[in-house]
Amino acid sequence: MQSLKTLLESRKFETAITALIIVNAITLGLETSQRAMEAFGPLLMVIDKVILAIFVAELAAKIFVYRGRFFNDPWRIFDLLVVGIALVPATANFSVLRALRILRVLRLVSMVPSLKRVVGGLVAALPGMGSIMLLLSLVYYVFAVMATKMFGPSFPDWFGTIGRSGYSLFQIMTLESWSMGIVRPVMEVFPWAWLFFIPFIVCTTFTVLNLFIGIIVSAMQEEHDAAATAERSALQHEQELILTEIRALREEVKALRVDERN
Amino acid sequence: MQSLKTLLESRKFETAITALIIVNAITLGLETSQRAMEAFGPLLMVIDKVILAIFVAELAAKIFVYRGRFFNDPWRIFDLLVVGIALVPATANFSVLRALRILRVLRLVSMVPSLKRVVGGLVAALPGMGSIMLLLSLVYYVFAVMATKMFGPSFPDWFGTIGRSGYSLFQIMTLESWSMGIVRPVMEVFPWAWLFFIPFIVCTTFTVLNLFIGIIVSAMQEEHDAAATAERSALQHEQELILTEIRALREEVKALRVDERN
Amino acid sequence: MQSLKTLLESRKFETAITALIIVNAITLGLETSQRAMEAFGPLLMVIDKVILAIFVAELAAKIFVYRGRFFNDPWRIFDLLVVGIALVPATANFSVLRALRILRVLRLVSMVPSLKRVVGGLVAALPGMGSIMLLLSLVYYVFAVMATKMFGPSFPDWFGTIGRSGYSLFQIMTLESWSMGIVRPVMEVFPWAWLFFIPFIVCTTFTVLNLFIGIIVSAMQEEHDAAATAERSALQHEQELILTEIRALREEVKALRVDERN
Amino acid sequence: MQSLKTLLESRKFETAITALIIVNAITLGLETSQRAMEAFGPLLMVIDKVILAIFVAELAAKIFVYRGRFFNDPWRIFDLLVVGIALVPATANFSVLRALRILRVLRLVSMVPSLKRVVGGLVAALPGMGSIMLLLSLVYYVFAVMATKMFGPSFPDWFGTIGRSGYSLFQIMTLESWSMGIVRPVMEVFPWAWLFFIPFIVCTTFTVLNLFIGIIVSAMQEEHDAAATAERSALQHEQELILTEIRALREEVKALRVDERN
Repeated sequence: MQSLKTLLESRKFETAITALIIVNAITLGLETSQRAMEAFGPLLMVIDKVILAIFVAELAAKIFVYRGRFFNDPWRIFDLLVVGIALVPATANFSVLRALRILRVLRLVSMVPSLKRVVGGLVAALPGMGSIMLLLSLVYYVFAVMATKMFGPSFPDWFGTIGRSGYSLFQIMTLESWSMGIVRPVMEVFPWAWLFFIPFIVCTTFTVLNLFIGIIVSAMQEEHDAAATAERSALQHEQELILTEIRALREEVKALRVDERN
Repeated sequence: MQSLKTLLESRKFETAITALIIVNAITLGLETSQRAMEAFGPLLMVIDKVILAIFVAELAAKIFVYRGRFFNDPWRIFDLLVVGIALVPATANFSVLRALRILRVLRLVSMVPSLKRVVGGLVAALPGMGSIMLLLSLVYYVFAVMATKMFGPSFPDWFGTIGRSGYSLFQIMTLESWSMGIVRPVMEVFPWAWLFFIPFIVCTTFTVLNLFIGIIVSAMQEEHDAAATAERSALQHEQELILTEIRALREEVKALRVDERN
Repeated sequence: MQSLKTLLESRKFETAITALIIVNAITLGLETSQRAMEAFGPLLMVIDKVILAIFVAELAAKIFVYRGRFFNDPWRIFDLLVVGIALVPATANFSVLRALRILRVLRLVSMVPSLKRVVGGLVAALPGMGSIMLLLSLVYYVFAVMATKMFGPSFPDWFGTIGRSGYSLFQIMTLESWSMGIVRPVMEVFPWAWLFFIPFIVCTTFTVLNLFIGIIVSAMQEEHDAAATAERSALQHEQELILTEIRALREEVKALRVDERN
Repeated sequence: MQSLKTLLESRKFETAITALIIVNAITLGLETSQRAMEAFGPLLMVIDKVILAIFVAELAAKIFVYRGRFFNDPWRIFDLLVVGIALVPATANFSVLRALRILRVLRLVSMVPSLKRVVGGLVAALPGMGSIMLLLSLVYYVFAVMATKMFGPSFPDWFGTIGRSGYSLFQIMTLESWSMGIVRPVMEVFPWAWLFFIPFIVCTTFTVLNLFIGIIVSAMQEEHDAAATAERSALQHEQELILTEIRALREEVKALRVDERN
């Protein structure tokens, strides 16, 4: 079992898995092409099945080796999920599941250290966004309920239910066709509707921008703090040297006075 | 009355009010669903009325306890307003007021400290935007009057009055359908219209971006100042230590000279 | 003449002019309203003419007082231009000039110090944008010529001349209807057109964003430099104090040795 | 050959080439105008051919002078490419190549130092974007394959092949007509489609914004580091002065004790 662990963590094994992921990415991409499927469709299917089998075996081996600790690394849970999708029986009703097999290619992120670091950085920015996301959800909910109550009966496609209102408000927040597509038609029925939508746009845009400003500032803060700490410690080191020298000097002057008295 | 104050400020009471706000958020949301209303519409109505009664009682008790000081906290005024909306008699003409009852859910912001802090931060960014907002309003007014005079007669829907021009210019500033929707049709009548709209877009976009740059810079400035002050005070503290040592040393050398002379 | 200068520079006179600008802003705004014109159109016209006369008199007085130095302050040249527009004879062909009278209201910027500072700040950011604006113009010119040559014959409305191509490319840069409105129709004739437009979007967006990043960084730089200079000078001041103390001490020790030898 | 090198690197020669580029920019621009071509088309053609000949001669001379080192400077390779385009025989099938002649005008960038610096700065920002661009490509590929599989059969124009899906997803990422143009029609067939598109928009927007935040932070970092280093070295210089003084003082006190003992 120790040798299995050594194999699973070896550089060569990782390279092989990475290569298989890339091959799988290509075959899954080719499956979308009518012409490629006609030419060598069965071959693509076989390659896909073989690679899937290898991935399943790899993950099973890892679970066997790491046991409980397997679930300590979120990346391994991610691997398990994206590989596991392919094992759910894809009936006609779940044909979407076949399309989700490509998610397996995202395993590449956990194999390439630089990608892992970038995604880690993005995820690390999320907790700082917690409060502002909660606020945004609250504002969305309030505006969605209001829009449903006020515009729902007249514009059921856009504001018929809370879900539809939420989607329409998301579209308005991204500024896509907000005026020509949504607000001008609404204003023909409710001329005061701009009093609802323009504050919504201003508030959410301002909040989202503040969210990103917050991320910028805290990213900078971190970099700056590290730099400032290094700088300060260099200066303080020298100051302590000075202090030590002066204290030694003082001792000597004291000794001088003692010498003299004798 | 003291015990009433203790009750109102107790942790349990706050939790209870927060829970009621969340329950109210759900019932008000369910009211927008046709199916939920058919199933247990009267119940939702009763819950809403009971919760409203509790909120009114709570605010009345707070006014009774804090009296004049009640209005010192802007959050309490906010609570009063959003709860008060539901008490305005909602006749057929004011059916919008019924939709505004959901604003009550925003009380959650004043109950959850982290949300309170985020909103406080957003509001604190506003005063620094004063001058630039005033400038933007002035530019808007000038461009709106010009657009009304120049394009109003030909395009009454978009530029018929100052209000309509202002709305259309806001749409243009957000870049929504500015060209295909508005400026290309206008240019078919007034081929020089781009001389009006492109400078408007460039000016307002540049100004709004500067507004946000200003907010970023000042947010960073604040963080940086706090850090720099802490750093400087640490270094200065040590420098003062050095200075004290040197002065003590000088005193001793002086004493030495006095010793010698005697 | 000295007393005229004192009058022109007095606080009261400035307040009076500011008040007149605001009144003029309101009357010029009311002129766009059909109803207001019917009710008291002639009165509005008279007020406008009187205020214009006062502004002309004011600027004439300033030219008389300051003479050559009048043109040293760019704000006074700005005042001269926006007031001067109203004096150009507005024939039927120049009816646009009547609409430009509202530009006069922008004089408010030069009267309110906080607005003056904001506009000054925006204008001060321009020179740093010189090189990048030149680059952007060059890129625009090159892409406009290419678009005219390649797509002009098939889409004369969008790319018929360099001017039209420039306008369409500006629209595409702002991302307004770039795909559904312009590029998808073009791609029906030239399927490779995305090879032209997507690099254009990526390049110009990246360049414009870098432009703003440059402005942010330099704004921050300035603030930071000012803060750092203050901080450093405080630390250096204390260091110099230490140095002075030590040198004095050394002199005293030297004196001690001289004392001793005698 | 040395004199040829001196000539090629002389200030006057560079100015002459710059002037020719500008003249060429104008003639190539005029070629797009029907009227200009009718008036003096043959003349424009001749000027273009003459300038092309001069550029070819210039680059040939540079290759002759610098030989292998010619290809060390990426700007010279760029010059070679944009001039070389005009020499490819432009048959009817390659009429696009005629339009590409205008790229020659981009040589101006390598002639004007300030433009060269700006482009250098933009290019220098690219390597830092490597990982995040790779991540973005991966996400694009995965989403494009999924969109092709899921929506391709129903919407062949938008999602028929991976290429079309990639283009449509790029359009959606720029937020152009994403909802009214693409997602709402798709949702009429697949009501759950928002579960695919909204996460795509949120993820890519967040990633692209982080890309730019990274560039801002690293640009600032660099500026700040330079400033901090200068600041620290000034403080350290003075600290070393203090230390030297103190050590000299200590030596003197030691000498004092030795004097005394004798």
